[in-house]
This record gives sequence, structure tokens and C-alpha cells, in this order.
Amino acid sequence: MQLYGILRHLIGIKFVNNPVFKSFPSVLKRKISVVSYLSEKYDQKKDWGKNKQHRSVKLKWIFDTMGDPQIEQILAPLRANVKEQGDLVRKLKADGAPDLDVKKAVAELKARKKILEDKELALAPNATFDRSKMEDLLKRRFFFDQSFAIYGGITGQFDFGPMGCAFKSNLLQAWRQFFVLEEQMLEVDCSILTPEPVLKASGHVDRFADLMVKDIKTGECFRLDHFIKAHLEKIAADKKTSAETKEECADIVIKLDGMTKAEMAAVMKKFNMKSPLTGNDLTDPIEFNLMFGTQIGPSGLIKGFLRPETAQGIFVNFKRLLEFNQGKLPFAAAQIGNAFRNEISPRSGLIRVREFTMAEIEHFCDPNDKNHPKFDKIKNVELLMYSACNQMDGKAAERKSIGEAVASGLVANETLGYFMARIQQFLVKCGVDPPRLRFRQHMSNEMAHYACDCWDAECLTSYGWVECVGCADRSAYDLTQHTQATGVRLAAEKKLENPKIIDVVEAAPNKGTLGKYFKKDAKTITDALAALSLNEVAALEKDLEGDGYELEVGGQKFTVTKEHVAVKRYQKTMHVEEIIPSVIEPSFGVGRVMYAIFEHNFKQRENDEQRTYLSLPATVAPLKCSILPLSGNTEFIPFIRELSAELTKVDVSHKIDDSSGSIGRRYARTDEIAIPYGITIDFDTLKEPHSITLRERDSMAQVRIPLSDIATVLHNLSYSKQSWMDIESKYPKFEQQESKGN
Amino acid sequence: MQLYGILRHLIGIKFVNNPVFKSFPSVLKRKISVVSYLSEKYDQKKDWGKNKQHRSVKLKWIFDTMGDPQIEQILAPLRANVKEQGDLVRKLKADGAPDLDVKKAVAELKARKKILEDKELALAPNATFDRSKMEDLLKRRFFFDQSFAIYGGITGQFDFGPMGCAFKSNLLQAWRQFFVLEEQMLEVDCSILTPEPVLKASGHVDRFADLMVKDIKTGECFRLDHFIKAHLEKIAADKKTSAETKEECADIVIKLDGMTKAEMAAVMKKFNMKSPLTGNDLTDPIEFNLMFGTQIGPSGLIKGFLRPETAQGIFVNFKRLLEFNQGKLPFAAAQIGNAFRNEISPRSGLIRVREFTMAEIEHFCDPNDKNHPKFDKIKNVELLMYSACNQMDGKAAERKSIGEAVASGLVANETLGYFMARIQQFLVKCGVDPPRLRFRQHMSNEMAHYACDCWDAECLTSYGWVECVGCADRSAYDLTQHTQATGVRLAAEKKLENPKIIDVVEAAPNKGTLGKYFKKDAKTITDALAALSLNEVAALEKDLEGDGYELEVGGQKFTVTKEHVAVKRYQKTMHVEEIIPSVIEPSFGVGRVMYAIFEHNFKQRENDEQRTYLSLPATVAPLKCSILPLSGNTEFIPFIRELSAELTKVDVSHKIDDSSGSIGRRYARTDEIAIPYGITIDFDTLKEPHSITLRERDSMAQVRIPLSDIATVLHNLSYSKQSWMDIESKYPKFEQQESKGN
Repeated sequence: MQLYGILRHLIGIKFVNNPVFKSFPSVLKRKISVVSYLSEKYDQKKDWGKNKQHRSVKLKWIFDTMGDPQIEQILAPLRANVKEQGDLVRKLKADGAPDLDVKKAVAELKARKKILEDKELALAPNATFDRSKMEDLLKRRFFFDQSFAIYGGITGQFDFGPMGCAFKSNLLQAWRQFFVLEEQMLEVDCSILTPEPVLKASGHVDRFADLMVKDIKTGECFRLDHFIKAHLEKIAADKKTSAETKEECADIVIKLDGMTKAEMAAVMKKFNMKSPLTGNDLTDPIEFNLMFGTQIGPSGLIKGFLRPETAQGIFVNFKRLLEFNQGKLPFAAAQIGNAFRNEISPRSGLIRVREFTMAEIEHFCDPNDKNHPKFDKIKNVELLMYSACNQMDGKAAERKSIGEAVASGLVANETLGYFMARIQQFLVKCGVDPPRLRFRQHMSNEMAHYACDCWDAECLTSYGWVECVGCADRSAYDLTQHTQATGVRLAAEKKLENPKIIDVVEAAPNKGTLGKYFKKDAKTITDALAALSLNEVAALEKDLEGDGYELEVGGQKFTVTKEHVAVKRYQKTMHVEEIIPSVIEPSFGVGRVMYAIFEHNFKQRENDEQRTYLSLPATVAPLKCSILPLSGNTEFIPFIRELSAELTKVDVSHKIDDSSGSIGRRYARTDEIAIPYGITIDFDTLKEPHSITLRERDSMAQVRIPLSDIATVLHNLSYSKQSWMDIESKYPKFEQQESKGN
Repeated sequence: MQLYGILRHLIGIKFVNNPVFKSFPSVLKRKISVVSYLSEKYDQKKDWGKNKQHRSVKLKWIFDTMGDPQIEQILAPLRANVKEQGDLVRKLKADGAPDLDVKKAVAELKARKKILEDKELALAPNATFDRSKMEDLLKRRFFFDQSFAIYGGITGQFDFGPMGCAFKSNLLQAWRQFFVLEEQMLEVDCSILTPEPVLKASGHVDRFADLMVKDIKTGECFRLDHFIKAHLEKIAADKKTSAETKEECADIVIKLDGMTKAEMAAVMKKFNMKSPLTGNDLTDPIEFNLMFGTQIGPSGLIKGFLRPETAQGIFVNFKRLLEFNQGKLPFAAAQIGNAFRNEISPRSGLIRVREFTMAEIEHFCDPNDKNHPKFDKIKNVELLMYSACNQMDGKAAERKSIGEAVASGLVANETLGYFMARIQQFLVKCGVDPPRLRFRQHMSNEMAHYACDCWDAECLTSYGWVECVGCADRSAYDLTQHTQATGVRLAAEKKLENPKIIDVVEAAPNKGTLGKYFKKDAKTITDALAALSLNEVAALEKDLEGDGYELEVGGQKFTVTKEHVAVKRYQKTMHVEEIIPSVIEPSFGVGRVMYAIFEHNFKQRENDEQRTYLSLPATVAPLKCSILPLSGNTEFIPFIRELSAELTKVDVSHKIDDSSGSIGRRYARTDEIAIPYGITIDFDTLKEPHSITLRERDSMAQVRIPLSDIATVLHNLSYSKQSWMDIESKYPKFEQQESKGN
């Protein structure tokens, strides 16, 4: 994945970029920034959910404000503001203005965009979401919780409990089915521990860093952008601060994201910033590499890192994979696995963590042919697209078909478009709410220099729009880097339609004399001769006329004469050419996708706010079905056992709840853990022909089904082979009210 | 898992313990030891398979030598030798002899056992296995290969390619189905990065180490046991060495495994051992902790390790899991995930690696009730059991039913026995060859002190008997350790059948006066009073009569008087008691299980040694089916497409091979990657009613099947719902010979 592009976005949304956050009451905002997110001390924080203020904030979200004339009227001047700046950026670029000027104009553009987006969100219909309630449910039913909590815990690390783990495992299995099996991708499983040279070549050793400052006495670290933001907000909230300074602070906070290291250092100096915990002086900004380092082997000589992404494992195996695919392009490789990032101060629950699961695809194709054979199948899929152009012009995202987007050149090629459509289909299938999903194009300034086009699938959550999946055309960058670092050519051969005749000029060693004369160095010399450039061969040809040619190899010098080598010229017919494939990369942040699905499926029962549940689709629900005997009557036991065995046979995971408590209360408990279907065994079950009631979670509707049908029905419902509507139309409705349940 | 027990065995078989190795020609043995396995330099080794000599050794294995009278006659004196020493060990223990004497006797016992086992293997029927051929296949078809090979590679790390990854993923899915779903276990997914205090409590920080020595000038490291062994073998192989010294060397090599650090240091000194690479002096033996260390967060203040096992993640979550299970025992938690071990010099392919996948189960139960409700279902399962007693007596392993073994007390309890039987069922289902599977009981001296009983499922491979799954009763060790370290009680409540009446004596604070007097310290004091022991309460009672009682809390002293606190005595009826659950732990080394399955399923076609294949069961085979059109005829294309779509719909993974090459050659290619079923589309397919041929890999038998049946047939075959015999009896045989295939 892209170094600065996707990964940074995939793993760490920037808080200052978060539009929702702007609408917090400022005092609350300050508290959150200063108290919870500032210092690494909070790595030792007991409990990720304890900051009640944070948890109880009610947030709004945008559904479909687009086109509402009243809202558009309010937004119009903000849109115009963005467009004005967007035009300036375009002009500066066209005029070839100095880099720094462009950068500043872009920062201002981003700031204006942010103001616009904040307003858009603020004006959206007032649907509320109570994050505290959801977090309470997820924690109480152990979907996930902070790791090592009994030891005080570490922020940015989470353990998935039985329900979270089953959800995750189902999600990954669905991903495998949807991408790997359906597209016949080559799935691999590579090492996490990665030796330094690999990540040096990929650029991670030099560039994968965040800025931080340290307390010069205690060594306490603060992430620079968080720190400055918190400091300025504190100043702005102070009654004694002048209106002018307040405005200046607000302005800096908005622009912070686009600032350079030097600019941020200047801000620190200007406001005389000290450690908020000790009042001590702070160091200058330091670049902190986000990779976890370790040593491989006992001597300490082999430096390694925990991989910051899974992609590199695929790139370094490119040759083997190409060979496995019998040398043919295109093909895609995929990998599901953990990656690690040593965040300075992780936060936002599952969204920014130190250890996370990724699912990445690297589709290798001919750089001159990025069409996709199955594009026709998905060309009518409509996506909500927020193009770079619209972002520059202050316009809203637009809904259009992917076919149209590729045809118009908005999306760079069919393969990229194909994956975007497939990503959307997958996310929606797994529970992402379509109106809360958009594809945002990277603006040219945020795209890594080697990428041609990049679209992030973003989900709207209470943390704002969160990048969950990146989809980039990365061109030939990584394969080229690893080729340069290792000398192993990571390239493919392409059959030429018309064979090419080329002129060859090469140094042709006389192996006999060369070997006799240079002995053990002969091979080195032969290799060096083969590697000469055209110009060097010309020089060689000239020098061979005289005293010989001096060849330098790895510090050693050898003089070869015309007895050892000759220059040959001939023509050669080429049937294949060597190409370095382009890579199209869809890259899923699994924890983020899970989080978005949690938020999009957290519901409350009408007229009963306390009765919350998760409406996860059956495909990914942790368990597919519950078995609830009406009471502890022993006559029910054989039925429970038989049912459980039958369901296991057809791969329907289930939970037996034979605890006391009314059926209604037990349903509520299973609703909380997202179990989509519930079987009740009651006294009618005992009568022939045996039957049970089956209840659907979201509608709470119930039908009466013969016991002999139930395994097949549940298998079909669980694996999307039948819908609840099919079942409702086939079997009689069961009318008893839940609240009246025994 | 057990610190010294299982994990060490699971991950690292000891080479000196390897019976097969003894039968190598000694010159070869020396080469392997000295050249390949000695030095960490070989961490940079290019290629895990390059040591041709090693790879091409043909090895024998034991099938069922037990009971062959001729063989038993040869083994009899060796068995008697073992028994003699076993009896001595027993006697020493019974007499309470000094530890060192017992240890020495045990080392000698192990040495004698090894000689016996070597002979057993040497006398076994001469079935040969060519490891080099298998490794060639696995590498060539990219089942797995060394990680980062283009960068020179790192030993002990492997990447799984498409076929290895699919096999692994199917194996894990089968495991999940077999254990987690069928037994309704609570699966969790915990963090890999683990803060130091957790692993301090578990004992890993202090005790998870191997011995090594370092070149004092270059820092080069050598694993001590490997190093001494290689050195002594070199001496022994030298023509100039006296017979006496040769014998001494051989004797030390045999006993090496049981030696202490001091004993090994003495051996080094006696033979004046220097670095084999530089001739430099070496350090004294150093304990090298096998965990990979790193720092969490930017300040470097939080020390962490990559987990050396997944089990601790379950233990630290015990409270949440118990709560999820509504407070009830027994329950089992499970986890699949990666663990890491910084081997000094890894080797033996997948068997000893630095990064590996484990699948662990922790079954928590009442220490006084280790019966299992489903024991009856498996009580007749027969296992090949190599009891500690038989090992001490020089007897062979014995086949007996698990019911018998538990009834006789050989296996400690039903739950342990239940899991042993289930482990065997799982391994066999996934392709382990039953005669090459045994359960070896830990002898009391190799068992961790907290374990009551431990059996390893060992698979016979060309590396000898390799521990693939550990199954231990670990008692309450881990929960107790974490309780002590954190103060959080990791215990369960057990309902008492008969309520108990107990006498309570306690310090009862007068909250009003205490609060008024001590203000903010009141709570500290109240807590301290509640924590007083019975003796302290007695002292308190006495002192309250006088001037008051002095309470010391965290360095502070407080004097409480009778105004603040009184001592109360009363009786209380207890309905529950607190118990610390026992843990039964089946722990799978996934890479090792995979390796054993590879070896057990690597086959050669009769009369064609070059035609090798893997007979993996369909459940775990990477792909279930191939689709092979007879030729490139375009009329076949719509049939290929339709078939592929149909198979995808019924979850049958498949590979289309439309390359040129005869059908026979293409079958051979799919046999290599273990595809169990092959569909051929030929000219008869084009005719109505459409039909295809279906071929089974192991028998190479073919049947003709209507196209309309094929998806269902393959689904049933792939998911063990029908056998090939069922299919053969239903459809007509197809007689064309493979070699004559077009």
C-alpha cells in the first residue's frame, strides 16, 4: 500500500480533519483533547470506555443532504470559498509556481474544505447515535475490549471476545469467498517479522514517521499535531484571551494538517508551549518512525521490524507467484494478516490501533492494458463519488455508475473501477449502510507520487468519514524498488504481437582465455562485461584497439584485452518484451470495517431506548441462531439436543440459552449479540407433528415451522440462499407477543 | 501452555534427541551439524533446501514392529537396559536421593531410551521416503518457501504460497468446525504485542531461555547444545582420535540433552572448544531469552514482547470469558494466532521456526470434577499410547482404548482423555497416517511442576517422532500467577450442594467516626482493615482495649481506636465457594501438523518414481477440483465458464487448466498440488445430454457424469457428504487410459 497515502489514512484518521469534532461544545472538545488524547501516560489508562463525557456525546450524521435547496443556499458561499482556492491551486500548478507556494495554497484549500464539510454535517437531518450506548453493549457482551486490562491495559490494543472474534472470522471468510475464491486470486500468508533491507527499499525505514516532541526532563512524548491543537484550544477557551488571538488559534488548528515540521516548530515557539503535564521545556519536533523494531537472532546483528502492512510480503514473492501463474498476466495475489504501527498516542477505539488486521489484494497487470474482463458485469453499479475535482470546486459528492465514471476518465481504468464496485458490493453485503458509504478520490497533492489514481472507500461514523478501504493504482513502484535493492528482476514477459528486430551490441568474452588468465575472477568479469551499458561497450571497443579496457568491479580493477573479449554486433528478433507490471491495490482495514458495521447496525427498539441490538447480516453475525426452551421442563431436553446436533451438521452456529428469564428477556439478550434467528421450543413442540417457532431479529416477526424443516431453513437463511420473506410467505405467522412471552 | 514442557517440545525438537539422525553415515552427520546448523551466519543462508546431502537421505520409519518376535529378540537386551535404569530412577526418587543424583540417573535413562528407539527405527520395515523429492515439490509448486529469499532470506521464517496458504486456511477452518463450533467453545483473538509484566507473571521473562555461547571477538552466537555436539562429532570422526576419546565423545553427545549449564561449561573447557569459524575464544554459557523484545509507544518506557504462545491472552481474559458464560464452569476458550520465538539457530524446515501459528484450547473446569459429559461418545477410540511407565521400563507403545486408559488411571481424567481422542480424530481426518501417530506421556521429570499429566500427540516423520499437539492438565497455575501479579481474583464461584456455616471474625469500621477523623484516608484505612488476617484481627481486638491499633498502609501509619472500629464475630451461611479452575490445554503447532500431513501424504506413482503427488484429504486440499478442457477448441469455453460459475456457487474451489499439454500431463500437475478431483471436458461433452469425466486423484479412476449432476457431486465429495465409492457405484466407469489421453 501507499506509504503516506492509504496506510496513514487507513490506520489513522487525523483528528484535526474530523468534521464531526468541530461541532462539539468547545469546552468538551478541550477536555477530550487535553485529558484523554494528549499524553503517552494514557497508555497505561485503565479503560478505553471510561471517559464518560466522550462516550455520551450524541453525534449527527449526514444522510442525503445533497440537493436540499434550503441547505444548499447556506452552503453556497462556503462552496464558492473552496472553489476560489481550488482554482488558485490549479493556477499555481499550471504556472509552475514554487513548491512551497503550492503547498501553502493546498493547506488553505483543505482548511476551507473542512469548514464546508463541517457545515454539511451540521445541517444534516438530525439522526442521533449514542456512541456510549453502543460501546457499553460491545464491552458488556465482550465483542472486544482493551487488551491486558487486568494489568492496566495498553491503549491501541484490543482483544476480540467470542462474539467479536466470530464476527471477524465470518467477515474474513466472506472476504475470502467474495474476492479470493470468486476471482481465483492467489492467497499467500507471509512473515510478520521483516528484515530491515526490505522496508528500507519500500521506503518505510526512511519515511514512515510521525512528528512528536519530548519533555526534556521526563522523556514524556506528545504527538505534535495533537499537542499543538490541544494547546491552542486551551488558549482559545480561556476567557482572558483576546478575540484576535482566539481567531488566530482557530486558524492554526484548521491549517495544522498541512503544516511542515518547521512551521509547527514556529507555532510552538510563538505560543511558548511547554509540557502540559510538568511545565518543562520540550524538544524540537522529532520524526518518530512508526514501526516496531526488534532483533532477529541472538547476536543482535539482524535488525527487523514488525511489518507495517501486509503488501510487501506479496511484492517480494512476485517472481514465485508469477511462476505459479505460469508466467501469465494479469493475476491477483491476496493476503489476510496482522500489521503493526507504533502510534504515538492511539485513540478512537478500533479506528486507530497499534496492532490490526488487514486484507490486501495486489492485482498485477500490463501497464498498457488495465481493462478488466468482468467489468461489464458491474458497470451499472452506482457509487457515491467524491472526486478530487469536486473537492477542489467545493461541490458535493455525486452518485454515478462506475461504467460512466471510467468512460469519462474520472476513474483511471476499468480494473480500478471494477475493484471499487466490488468493494462496495462486499461492504454492503456485510452490513455497511449504503447512504453512509462514499468513495473519495485522493487529490493530486495527497496522493503518493507513484500512484496514478486512488479512491478511498469511506464510511460515515460518529468519528466522521473514516477511510476503511483504499483502492489505488500504484503503478510499478514497489516492484521497481525491490528490483533495485536486490538485483532480482521483478518483471514479466509479454508476448509481442509483431516480433521486433533489434540491434544488439555486446561484449562477447572469450571464455577460454579469460578463464585461464583471470582464474577465479573470470566469472566476476564475465558478469561485469554483460552488465556494461551501450556507451561503455563503445568505450570498450575503442580501448581494445589499444592497451586494453579497465574494468572496475566492486573496488577491484581488471584490465581486459582483445584476447579476452571482443565486441559483437548483430540483429535479434524479439518475440517477447519485458514489462514491469502495474499494481492495482484494494486494501481493507478490517478493524475499521468492523467498527463501521457496528455503528451502522446498532439500533434501538422503537419506544424502548434501553433495548438496543445489533442488526448484523446473517452472513457475518457471530452466531446464526439461538435455541430457547420455554422453560426448564426436562421434556424439552431431547429436542434441544437433537436440534443442536442437526444445526451443527448443516454448519449453523448457534447458542442454547436455557437459563431462566422470560423468553422476551432472552430474545433481548440474543438480539444484543446480533443473533438473527431464534428458535423457541414450547409445549406445542412436544406434540406431533413437532414444530417450533422461528423469530427474526430485526422485525421480531415469528413463524411456526415443522421441526423437520428447521435445519434446512436455517442453513438457507444463514448462507443467503433464502430470505426471511421467503420463509414468511411459506409458513404460518406465529402471533404471540414477545412481551407476553412466558 | 507449559513453559518448559510443551512449548519447548512443540516448537523445538532437539536434534540430539532425534533417533533417525543416529543412522546417518557419520561423515554426513558431521557435515550437516557443522556446516548448516551451527552458526547464526546461516540466518543469511540463501535457501532452506540447498543442502542436497541432507535432502537426499532416505529414511526409514517404524510402522508396526511391535510384536515381531525376531525384532523383539534383538531389542530385548536394550529394553532390559532401559528398565534397569528406570528402576534405579524410581528407587532414587523413593529413597529421596539428592536432586543431582536423580537428574544424572534420568539423563542416563534418556540416553538408554534413545539407543532403544534408534534400534527400533533401524529395524522397522524398509519403507523409504525421499525428503528431497518432497521438498522439491513443495518448493516448486510454492506450497511454502523461505521468506524474503530475494533479500537473502532469514532462516526460521517461511511464506506460504497459494497452495500452502489454502491448505492452512482449510486446516484452520476444519479445526474451528471440529473444536470451536462442535464444542461451542469461546473463540477469542488477542493481541500479539504483550507488555512485560504479563510475561513476567507467566514465567516467560525469567525462564524462557536457551543456552548459547558467543565468539568474544566477533559476537557470533552458537546454540550451546548444537555447538558441543558438532564439536565432539568432529573429534570423534578424526582418524587420529583414540578409541577411548571417541567413546567419551559419543557418550557425552548422548547425555547432552540432560546436562546442566555447569556441566556443559565443563565439557567445553575439557575439550578446549573455540569458535569453529574464527578460532577465537568463546564466552561462558549465556542464557538467551527466546522472546522477541520491542518497545510499545514512542518513549521507550513500556517494554513489550511478541507473545511466545497464544494461551496467555486467554488467561488474562478469564474473568470476561467466565462472565460471558454466565459464571458457569466448565467452559473452553480457544484461539488461533501467531506466536514468536527467537530461535538461536532454527532448522528442520517448518518444524522449528521463529514465527508460527498455534491453535490452542483452554478448557476451564472444577478441579474436583474433571469428568466430561461427552466422554461416552469417544471412550472406545483406540490410541497408540507410550506411557511414562513403558518409557521407564523399555517397553514399546501400546494400543488401547481411551476408556480403558482413563479407567485404569493411566490418563489422569476424562476431560484430558476426551481431548486426546478428539485430537486423534481431527489429525486423522486431516490426513495424518494413523500408524504414524502416537501419544507420548511426559515422564515426571520432563513435566512442568504445575502439570498433573501431559500427553504429546507425536507424528513420525523423517525427522523422527515430532510433537505436533500437546495435551496437558495444567492445574490452576496460570490463573494463580496472574491473580498474584494483578490482585484481580481469577476465580469462579461454585454452588455448594450443602450450604456451609462458617465463623466470621472481622474488623467492622464505624464509617461515620472514621470518615470524620481520617478524611481522605478513610477509604484506604477501611480497605486495609478488610484485608487483615485472622491473627491481625486478634491483635487489633487486643490493642483496641488499650491505646489503639497501629495500621501500616503503603508506608503510612494510622492509629485506629475503638471509636473507629470494632471486632465482630458471627456465623455466616455460605451457598457458594470460590474455586480456581483447573485448565486442560490441547495446544496445536499448526506448521508441524501441516508438515506431518505433507510427509504422510507424499506419494509416488507405482512404476513411475518421478511422478509424485500429495494425497491430501478433500476437506483440507487447497483446491477441490480441476477443470481441464481436452484442447483449446473454442466450443469448450462456454462449458468451462458455466462449470466454474456453478462450482463457485456451491463453494467448490477449483482451478482451470486450459494450457496445452496432454491431459495426462495436466493431471500430473494437478496431482502435485493435491487436487482430489478432475473434470475433463471433451468432445462428448458437447453432445446432448452433456456429460464430463470425473477423475479421482489417488486411484486415478474415472467415471462419466451428466453435466447437470456435477456441482452437487463435487460439493458432496468436497465436504465429506459422499465418498468416491458412492460415486463409482452410481456412475459408469470411464475406461480411457491416462497415458493415452490426448
